[in-house]
Amino acid sequence: MAKPVWIKHALLATLKGQAGPRSGAAMSELGIIEDGSLWLEDGIIQAVGTTDDLALTYGGRSGEAEVVDAAGRLVTPGLVDPHTHVVYGGSREGEFEKRLQGVSYMEIMNAGGGIHATMRMTREASEEELYDQSRKRLDAFLVHGVTTVEGKSGYGMDLETEMKQLEVMKRLNAEHPIDLVPTFMGAHAVPAEYKGREDEYVDHLIEKMLPKAAGLAEFNDVFCERNVFTPEQSERILEAGKRYGLTPKIHADEIVSYGGAELAAKVGAISAEHLLKASDEGIEAMAAAGTIACLLPATALYLREEAAEGRKMIDRGVAVAVSTDCNPGSSPTVSMPLVMNLACISMRLTPAEALAAATYNAACAINRQDRVGSLETGKGADVVLWGVHSYQELQYLFGVNHVESVWKNGERVVG
Amino acid sequence: MAKPVWIKHALLATLKGQAGPRSGAAMSELGIIEDGSLWLEDGIIQAVGTTDDLALTYGGRSGEAEVVDAAGRLVTPGLVDPHTHVVYGGSREGEFEKRLQGVSYMEIMNAGGGIHATMRMTREASEEELYDQSRKRLDAFLVHGVTTVEGKSGYGMDLETEMKQLEVMKRLNAEHPIDLVPTFMGAHAVPAEYKGREDEYVDHLIEKMLPKAAGLAEFNDVFCERNVFTPEQSERILEAGKRYGLTPKIHADEIVSYGGAELAAKVGAISAEHLLKASDEGIEAMAAAGTIACLLPATALYLREEAAEGRKMIDRGVAVAVSTDCNPGSSPTVSMPLVMNLACISMRLTPAEALAAATYNAACAINRQDRVGSLETGKGADVVLWGVHSYQELQYLFGVNHVESVWKNGERVVG
Ligand SMILES: [Zn+2]
Ligand SMILES: [Zn+2]
Repeated sequence: MAKPVWIKHALLATLKGQAGPRSGAAMSELGIIEDGSLWLEDGIIQAVGTTDDLALTYGGRSGEAEVVDAAGRLVTPGLVDPHTHVVYGGSREGEFEKRLQGVSYMEIMNAGGGIHATMRMTREASEEELYDQSRKRLDAFLVHGVTTVEGKSGYGMDLETEMKQLEVMKRLNAEHPIDLVPTFMGAHAVPAEYKGREDEYVDHLIEKMLPKAAGLAEFNDVFCERNVFTPEQSERILEAGKRYGLTPKIHADEIVSYGGAELAAKVGAISAEHLLKASDEGIEAMAAAGTIACLLPATALYLREEAAEGRKMIDRGVAVAVSTDCNPGSSPTVSMPLVMNLACISMRLTPAEALAAATYNAACAINRQDRVGSLETGKGADVVLWGVHSYQELQYLFGVNHVESVWKNGERVVG
Repeated sequence: MAKPVWIKHALLATLKGQAGPRSGAAMSELGIIEDGSLWLEDGIIQAVGTTDDLALTYGGRSGEAEVVDAAGRLVTPGLVDPHTHVVYGGSREGEFEKRLQGVSYMEIMNAGGGIHATMRMTREASEEELYDQSRKRLDAFLVHGVTTVEGKSGYGMDLETEMKQLEVMKRLNAEHPIDLVPTFMGAHAVPAEYKGREDEYVDHLIEKMLPKAAGLAEFNDVFCERNVFTPEQSERILEAGKRYGLTPKIHADEIVSYGGAELAAKVGAISAEHLLKASDEGIEAMAAAGTIACLLPATALYLREEAAEGRKMIDRGVAVAVSTDCNPGSSPTVSMPLVMNLACISMRLTPAEALAAATYNAACAINRQDRVGSLETGKGADVVLWGVHSYQELQYLFGVNHVESVWKNGERVVG
């Protein structure tokens, strides 16, 4: 059993507040405690308060604890990344270089590149190889202060590989400090063998894949986009998933305005992703339905797209979360700190909103708000100590990983 | 005396090649040595070659060396940041937050914010305070693989404070592992007390400041921009600096196309900075004159501007370097790794060009190419070991500081 941990003299951003996804002004309420203190024991946050408060209740036990003097530095909940494709085979840095040397996207696709390259490499990888690659990525997430990660299947697009991805996630969740929350995404693309027979693939997915995925995943995600899955196909897939207990998520309105945000609200999706081209009607519908907008500004940067209108969404009452979208084609990064910075720089979130979007609201987007996302008594002891003295500095001194130490379930895993 | 260091089994990007700033195809020549090896001793790179080569010449001395097995990881020269304002007083994260809360730039300026806030805080700071703040920033540069940094004065805009900044740089250069290369930039803005009397400030700068700066700085920089210094004023300042042995640099064409690139070529500036709005004629003139383009994509990101046309400049024969522009108003970052990533993502440099722009060409931009910027026998032993297995990965897996270890003058200073 690990020693108790007593973190003292911290600037605590507890994120304590109303239950459920926060939008509007509530996104700026960080529940700050100056000269704050945490007592972590048995994997749980046992107490949160001022250092004086905790000295009264726990001071007598300080001899048995690891005592950490934060000396005024910022302490937050462990970051939550609610949207990744972290389990994939191979690597595509060669393609990145070719694009920059002037080779066109079509030439790369015709040479078997793009998502089809990752599909091939993921199909060919053994479970062990996939596990090893993905484990290294999770290690890197941890170094960047991330203690909970959502992961999607979707690079198999056949029954066997989709289940292999989900099995790897199950094992990673059990063996790696990070909690990995599994999403089935057989509808990530239409596999080449179903080209022109998209509805047959949807039937196949619903009849053959969903029943098996239901035992391994919590969420069911679909790439609703022109030339991928139509809103009608997406709705069929998401409704079928609900019958197996899978909560809908939806990659929506990334490339063109396609009714994805509206569909997310209609099917009761927990979150809609990307939303670069979401319509005003879609944003209103999401606000009314309580659908979380999961925004991915690192992807927009990497693809040189205008980022989603995060500022507008918050102002219109949508709860906003942010994520890396970690994947080999459009966002090969694990840096949630950079994503928070970009939330401010590219989407005009305030420093406080960016932190809420990467912690509490991100936890809500994967239904983990009862366990993580805020520093509250009884929650999992997932905590980050940062080398800055304010939450403003965390976003202002951008492009730097300010993480100094990370605790997962009360055990120090970084720093 | 430090032990010799033998780095073995590295993917070496030596950057060895033609002397002087590189443009066009030469920017992609990284002088790669697979299974490469370095022998560092007495602060100097004593040998560069394959591991087999060095085993023949140095194998007998391996017992007295610190032996580092890079196991195929990438090893490069220490990065060089050729454009920073790293010595400044105070911090402006509050202003960053206010902007995002909707306060306008003019309101902030009217409340004494912006560059005038930094000027005030720099004037008020003691030499000791300035030294301590700046030293921490240099520590952070080192962690990001940067072993040589240029620094500018320019937050005093009075004789006393300008000299204080240069004195702090002199002391930092002597006491910090990083080599800090000093630039005088009294012409960073027109101080409030000279408002409407810009030419008088130019006279004052030339007559009173330059003679004193000459003993402390190597370069003389000016912010040539509409409503700051005209091309005529800039030329006077730069020509006057030359008479004191100060090599010209110029902040050019950042906000509007203003003839800055053309002026850089005309006065024989070693480099021109920013260049977001440089004209085609200016680019041609720089190529003909051999003026280095020092591009600052993190600043463009932070200000939500379109980055400079790095791709076009290289293709037209301009040697390109990149830099953080580290400063409190428009680029509060120390991450040269992110700057390299942005050079690829935002400016379409290839991964190889981005590395050359942050090492050899950056060294040329501050006239240090004889000492640093490439791994060659006789040069300073400034070396970075990265946690990646190719130079492509270094740029592709973006937003992450992949530095594992840094040696400065042959001594391990990180990792
Ligand atoms: Zn995705
Ligand atoms: Zn500058």
